[in-house]
Amino acid sequence: MTPAADAALALLLEAAGTPKPGNVDRARDHDDLHFEQFLGGAVGARRGLDAAAEGERVGAAFEESVRGMADAAGTNTQFGALLLLVPLVKAAGDGELTPERVAGTVENTTVADAVDFYRAFEHADVALDDPPEDAGDIDARRGEKAIPALRDREITLYDVLALGADSDGVAAEWTGGFERTFDAADYIERRTGPLSERGAEAFLRLLAEEPDTLVVTNHGRPVAREVSERAEELLDAPERKVDAFADELVERGVNPGTTADITAAALFVALRRGESVA
Amino acid sequence: MTPAADAALALLLEAAGTPKPGNVDRARDHDDLHFEQFLGGAVGARRGLDAAAEGERVGAAFEESVRGMADAAGTNTQFGALLLLVPLVKAAGDGELTPERVAGTVENTTVADAVDFYRAFEHADVALDDPPEDAGDIDARRGEKAIPALRDREITLYDVLALGADSDGVAAEWTGGFERTFDAADYIERRTGPLSERGAEAFLRLLAEEPDTLVVTNHGRPVAREVSERAEELLDAPERKVDAFADELVERGVNPGTTADITAAALFVALRRGESVA
Repeated sequence: MTPAADAALALLLEAAGTPKPGNVDRARDHDDLHFEQFLGGAVGARRGLDAAAEGERVGAAFEESVRGMADAAGTNTQFGALLLLVPLVKAAGDGELTPERVAGTVENTTVADAVDFYRAFEHADVALDDPPEDAGDIDARRGEKAIPALRDREITLYDVLALGADSDGVAAEWTGGFERTFDAADYIERRTGPLSERGAEAFLRLLAEEPDTLVVTNHGRPVAREVSERAEELLDAPERKVDAFADELVERGVNPGTTADITAAALFVALRRGESVA
Repeated sequence: MTPAADAALALLLEAAGTPKPGNVDRARDHDDLHFEQFLGGAVGARRGLDAAAEGERVGAAFEESVRGMADAAGTNTQFGALLLLVPLVKAAGDGELTPERVAGTVENTTVADAVDFYRAFEHADVALDDPPEDAGDIDARRGEKAIPALRDREITLYDVLALGADSDGVAAEWTGGFERTFDAADYIERRTGPLSERGAEAFLRLLAEEPDTLVVTNHGRPVAREVSERAEELLDAPERKVDAFADELVERGVNPGTTADITAAALFVALRRGESVA
């Protein structure tokens, strides 16, 4: 399997894993978001992932993957997962996939990558928290309008994500050497059973470890903390209890999407290290 | 979406559709075949599908797609579906997707395509019925060993499938203008709801219409007829009754895989005509 194929499969395995409390999975659609849209998003992102594996700039490959995802799925299904996967795929495309090489890949991003990233927001409706006070004219919610300021201030894509690292779990991975991604991949490799099930188990563990930043953005920090505490209580619980929690979170509209993004990235690392569905 | 992306998505939507009696679906694994292997097969087939869309010969694109499928899935998940999809994708790649243009695509196959097809058998374990008496030294079960005979006798891939048209539902599509594929696509387009559900509905209708030839090969014609009669009785039944039939067939190991192949092809045609998961 090529790195791009493994990345597409990681997106599919993440979506298929069940129960994955609060997220769409193969057993649970949301009212406005269906499992099959995640299948479409994974297929649509493939050309951008291929470009990343072939050495395209991170920003350009990311923008292409998001455009393809949104075109196929009709909505934002995997924006955050692709933001993690694109540098991972690029690093895997020209050498061994190590935390150090991925860190180098993101640290080497440029102003051009930042421009592409802001363009990607034009393709998909992404939930964003209030930006840090020093963001100002490069608030990502401004989309393409922020591009002149990026160029004036010579801000790279790494700089952009560093600004968000305190409030966004995907940005924290970028600036923290993809630590949770590689830890979760280790965990997946230690488990046995179908890979999508191991992904769901890794999801619950990640959720128990840290409040999900998408839940913080949409519901506030107390709800995000409550969800993580509940996940921790369920770590060794029978599956029917996890299923009930999953149904409850779907009912409440609480969607720990950032944790799902890290799960997809961890599945990719596990696939590159030799795990497979075969 | 490109034709190759639509074909990969059609494979995923076919696999996801539930209940699809006797087949792996998102709610049912078999003991030796899991849903996630179908996700892998669809991802792995992508390069061969890309080649078909870009004008590669039918046989070469098919062999590449089967090799990628088997490499990712570790088994034969979608051999028959790819045999239908590759000429459909090739026809869609350079013009309008009509039954006439697909018929022309398969009729124009050559001896070289037949050679590729026999090579594809080396990548995957495919269930085959006893060949017709006039097959002899080109019995597909001989795999690559049959290649010299193909060349001596100047047998094209279309000729090979014409030999199997009486006993194999995929071969019958090749020589019959993909009639059931396009009919099922019309049916899918008339229904509403998520596309994977419409695929499952089309599957049940196709199964009710004609005995599945993979079931004939593995269990004999009386079982195949019984399964189709039961499917016909369930056409307007509540979903729980179809679910119970699905559980029963999985229990009995009866797998109407040829009907699933035609369902995947029909989903592809529907996607090309404008249906989407968005």
